[in-house]
Amino acid sequence: MINITLPDGSVKQYEACVTGLDIARSISNSLAREVLSVTVNGEVLDVNRPIRSDATLRLNKWEDPEGKHAFWHSSAHLMAEAIEALYPGTKFGIGPAIENGFYYDVDPGDEVVITDSDLPRIEEKMKEIASEKHPFRREEVTKSEAMEFFGNKGDEYKTELIDELEDGTISFYRSGSFTDLCRGPHLADTSPIKAIKLLNVAGAYWRGDENRKQMTRIYGVTFPKQKMLEEHLELLEQARQRDHRKLGKELELFTFSQRVGQGLPLWLPKGAQLRERLENFLKKVQREHGYEQVITPHIGQKELWVTSGHYEKYGKESFQPIHTPQEGEEFLLKPMNCPAHLEIYRYKPRSYRDLPIRLAEFGTVYRYEQSGELHGLTRVRGFTQDDAHIFCRPDQLKDEFKKVIDIVLLIFTTLDFHDFTTQVSLRDPEDMEKYIGTEANWEKAENAILEAVEEKGMEYTVERGEAAFYGPKLDFMVRDALGRKWQLGTIQVDYNLPDRFELEYIGEDNQKHRPVMIHRAPFGSMERFVAVLIEHTAGKFPLWLAPDQAVILPISEKYYDYAEKVSNFLKNYDIRTLIDGRNEKIGKKIRDNELKRIPYLLIVGEKEQESSSVSVRRQGEGDQGVMKLEEFARFMQSEIRNQLGSTGTDV
Amino acid sequence: MINITLPDGSVKQYEACVTGLDIARSISNSLAREVLSVTVNGEVLDVNRPIRSDATLRLNKWEDPEGKHAFWHSSAHLMAEAIEALYPGTKFGIGPAIENGFYYDVDPGDEVVITDSDLPRIEEKMKEIASEKHPFRREEVTKSEAMEFFGNKGDEYKTELIDELEDGTISFYRSGSFTDLCRGPHLADTSPIKAIKLLNVAGAYWRGDENRKQMTRIYGVTFPKQKMLEEHLELLEQARQRDHRKLGKELELFTFSQRVGQGLPLWLPKGAQLRERLENFLKKVQREHGYEQVITPHIGQKELWVTSGHYEKYGKESFQPIHTPQEGEEFLLKPMNCPAHLEIYRYKPRSYRDLPIRLAEFGTVYRYEQSGELHGLTRVRGFTQDDAHIFCRPDQLKDEFKKVIDIVLLIFTTLDFHDFTTQVSLRDPEDMEKYIGTEANWEKAENAILEAVEEKGMEYTVERGEAAFYGPKLDFMVRDALGRKWQLGTIQVDYNLPDRFELEYIGEDNQKHRPVMIHRAPFGSMERFVAVLIEHTAGKFPLWLAPDQAVILPISEKYYDYAEKVSNFLKNYDIRTLIDGRNEKIGKKIRDNELKRIPYLLIVGEKEQESSSVSVRRQGEGDQGVMKLEEFARFMQSEIRNQLGSTGTDV
Repeated sequence: MINITLPDGSVKQYEACVTGLDIARSISNSLAREVLSVTVNGEVLDVNRPIRSDATLRLNKWEDPEGKHAFWHSSAHLMAEAIEALYPGTKFGIGPAIENGFYYDVDPGDEVVITDSDLPRIEEKMKEIASEKHPFRREEVTKSEAMEFFGNKGDEYKTELIDELEDGTISFYRSGSFTDLCRGPHLADTSPIKAIKLLNVAGAYWRGDENRKQMTRIYGVTFPKQKMLEEHLELLEQARQRDHRKLGKELELFTFSQRVGQGLPLWLPKGAQLRERLENFLKKVQREHGYEQVITPHIGQKELWVTSGHYEKYGKESFQPIHTPQEGEEFLLKPMNCPAHLEIYRYKPRSYRDLPIRLAEFGTVYRYEQSGELHGLTRVRGFTQDDAHIFCRPDQLKDEFKKVIDIVLLIFTTLDFHDFTTQVSLRDPEDMEKYIGTEANWEKAENAILEAVEEKGMEYTVERGEAAFYGPKLDFMVRDALGRKWQLGTIQVDYNLPDRFELEYIGEDNQKHRPVMIHRAPFGSMERFVAVLIEHTAGKFPLWLAPDQAVILPISEKYYDYAEKVSNFLKNYDIRTLIDGRNEKIGKKIRDNELKRIPYLLIVGEKEQESSSVSVRRQGEGDQGVMKLEEFARFMQSEIRNQLGSTGTDV
Repeated sequence: MINITLPDGSVKQYEACVTGLDIARSISNSLAREVLSVTVNGEVLDVNRPIRSDATLRLNKWEDPEGKHAFWHSSAHLMAEAIEALYPGTKFGIGPAIENGFYYDVDPGDEVVITDSDLPRIEEKMKEIASEKHPFRREEVTKSEAMEFFGNKGDEYKTELIDELEDGTISFYRSGSFTDLCRGPHLADTSPIKAIKLLNVAGAYWRGDENRKQMTRIYGVTFPKQKMLEEHLELLEQARQRDHRKLGKELELFTFSQRVGQGLPLWLPKGAQLRERLENFLKKVQREHGYEQVITPHIGQKELWVTSGHYEKYGKESFQPIHTPQEGEEFLLKPMNCPAHLEIYRYKPRSYRDLPIRLAEFGTVYRYEQSGELHGLTRVRGFTQDDAHIFCRPDQLKDEFKKVIDIVLLIFTTLDFHDFTTQVSLRDPEDMEKYIGTEANWEKAENAILEAVEEKGMEYTVERGEAAFYGPKLDFMVRDALGRKWQLGTIQVDYNLPDRFELEYIGEDNQKHRPVMIHRAPFGSMERFVAVLIEHTAGKFPLWLAPDQAVILPISEKYYDYAEKVSNFLKNYDIRTLIDGRNEKIGKKIRDNELKRIPYLLIVGEKEQESSSVSVRRQGEGDQGVMKLEEFARFMQSEIRNQLGSTGTDV
């Protein structure tokens, strides 16, 4: 008999070679139907793998990432089996489970092309096979057996992979007519795979190497219930509708130009306005919190980056150095703003009374990304950090940390992100050698962060070993309106750069001391944040932030003058308006302008002109009744005050 | 007899071989005493050069640049003579007249060092020689005579120069014991040189080549009257006091770091604030005038610059291209913002109704300058242009030009530059081939500019041949408080880039047309403008622009709380204050803070606390009496309103 420890701490005894499925059944049949994989002593396994000795065990269901992973991994095999049935002779690359589904890279041969229009046929075949309830059978094989099998099959992708594996570690999984080189784990059989959707076909180089064969990558997603698939597809459709690349174009916020270069956004007038408004908001909040803005150049001499340590990390995959007519002179595009801020700290002697010094900059930095990795505003080659560096005494660290948390929370709530999580990253207790800075300082800094998040009453997770080599940090992840997680702000303690730049202040004891440095960026980058904001709000920005706050729709030419008057009146209240002066029916004007996501539509005709008023529609919410001009202006102001209320900021 | 035409058009007859001096004497003896050189048929000559045939003639006095030039050129010879007397064996490089005085590059031999402390002795010697009234005698010599003379003297600098001259064009000038290789012209004799000041000693490479000998350059200035010298030295002292590099440091506006790189300013908090306020001011003015802000990256792909034509001009003396891991991919640091703005124009189809489109950006550009040419903020390697590009129909050009002039004038007057001149640069009628664009368009553009400046009632000069190859332009030069001229804003018409980027709009006729483009930057660059503003105002910025508007000086610790209260009160009125909380006597506090050029000093003690008031001092102007807090706030607001009045802007 062996002892099995369950997640609740209870211990049960079973025969040796019991399977996870057996154990689930011993608890309840309904549980057994839901178990997709098991975690045994930390290793995720098939539900029917025998357990030979004492173990801790977790039964993974759909709700667990390990459950979904097995489900989608098995679905990838199922798709491969269907493809092999429909396109005999197809060769297979790799077919993993991914965050939301799975894919398989396949090579159907030079004569055959698989396109999106072929996907329904493959889906049908998959459903047919799934319903046959083929078990997934694991088989340990020797390297030569594996080579022989795929050699006979003529699949040079698999043989290449096998060639790199160590003998004694190789396994196959067979299900129905399909056999794959695979580590597992998999479902017990194909029957739980009830709802299937193949999403799209893309090209992908074999092993990500653009000099090798381009394979056909087929993405799909599966669920145990049709309703779950439908909900997922609905979410995907919503995400597609909110895609910031699509909305960025429709709302004329930004564009890219092949000539200027990939990954280098051009901010169009409305986008630049939105971004500037966000920056001004942050500047004001930061000014209130004792930050000082500085401006530093976008390039820096080699010596700066040698001192900061960036130069040695600046490898072949980066933007290369800029040479000049002066021999030996070399500049780098700045990948970070910090070194220039350290030089500003250094430009004059500092005393303990001067600290903390908080230097802020909306600094545009440039980092090379492979063109295949670029994505709208979220993955770019040039982006503007809402950066600041705080230089403080060690005894000020905790307080400063708390103040930064205050700013981050203030910003998130003002921008309507109420669902976020935080992660504290500390040293790896197993590998204390790799960190720089004294033990005492690390202790102080780690405790400062932990106490700060405790005192702020925040929910947080602690990850040991995730700290940077130069200091611990706190990261913020927000969840958007579709429930998707985005990594945004970060707060990092740094003992390294003050050392490298030999920063000093004269203490109360008249001795030289080294300040601590905090890096922080609540948004992370303006580009990324604007992308997230677009997707979170579906382009319906809060009133204070909207590039245009109201559009005035005269019902006919006769009221153009009055529309102008309304526009000028509202301008005195700093309300940004447009006039739709097209010679179109009012119904069409309303429909067209609703699409532009301008918060208010103001319809003006004879009645409104006579009473110095406007007929107000809220975008997406319909008629709000007639208001006098001044009443509407105050109504707008009060909405904006409510939105910015907690910051006391007037942007 | 020959006919001499004078500047007033009158013609007088003289014997052939009459000299300019004779002619001056024939008019009046006092005139003769004042003539320093003569311009004969456009050529500037010595006053005693014989005139052999009919000629137009101008007598150049001190007021004329040609008069000063001869005076200072002769002074350089005089200095050389003194140096030769004091340091026998000295060899001489070149010794020209310059904008404000003269210099001579000398090589006193490896054993001798001439420093600033030697200058009084040289000055004395110059005065002694000048008073001896040595005439300057011109002598035409053959190349071999010239070589022989300086060869014998052992002056390899002069022989190197002579070697490059053509025989038959060489002249010497002798005066006293000194003979120089020289084209002239010179004074008749040394006696007008009454007031002498040698200013400083610097190093200068022979022929500007850093691989050659470093010579000793001695700068001096001379005047016909002692009082003029005194006034000039006073002006120099004032300029030194106002030097933006000195004030920039004292007022903590900007700094440079050797590590970041020469010519790359780091804007300190107060400087960044000043610059941002200027930018916001300009943004508001521009918004009122229908401009739209955009934001574009600091690098652009090779293809962008090939299209714009910058790539081929981007030679060895520039920042070199940035390579990337992608073979053949190449980026340039942007030397101009225009190409990215052209791409923004192109991002969607434009109609004649959309024009004019006015795209503005505070765009930071990078241009390599030799380190020897860098100077504070006026000559840098990275600077931010207050750039905008207007795309309009040809029929809108004149109107747009006038609107740009309006903005430039509004900005200059708001910033207290009332003394400025403008220059219209047109095509060279002798060389019409070199311009691009149609004859009709050039006609239209040149006339548009001329009519615009006429209609604006501006004073202007017209320079034919000074237009860029791509279009005519209008430049603004301002005179600062010390009367020095600075080139600032520019407005340029451009037919080239719209062609190169194939810009189009659909006209009323439904056909494709090409828009015209205007480049304009009222400040030129933020760096240069801030430098000029510092020197113009001596760091006493207008109240609306001052980083700190008032400093509160509690007369003792007891009133610190009240000082805080005053500060918070004024903050509600957007008045920026500091508190001098040092434990110092009030007299010292006043003296220290006067030096910081903060517009208002507010002294608070018991009396002020009891009456909720402040004792007001205007920086540099002393006591302004006691004011209630609210009274002072309104007083400040009204001063700011007056300063910004014409713009209606609230920054």
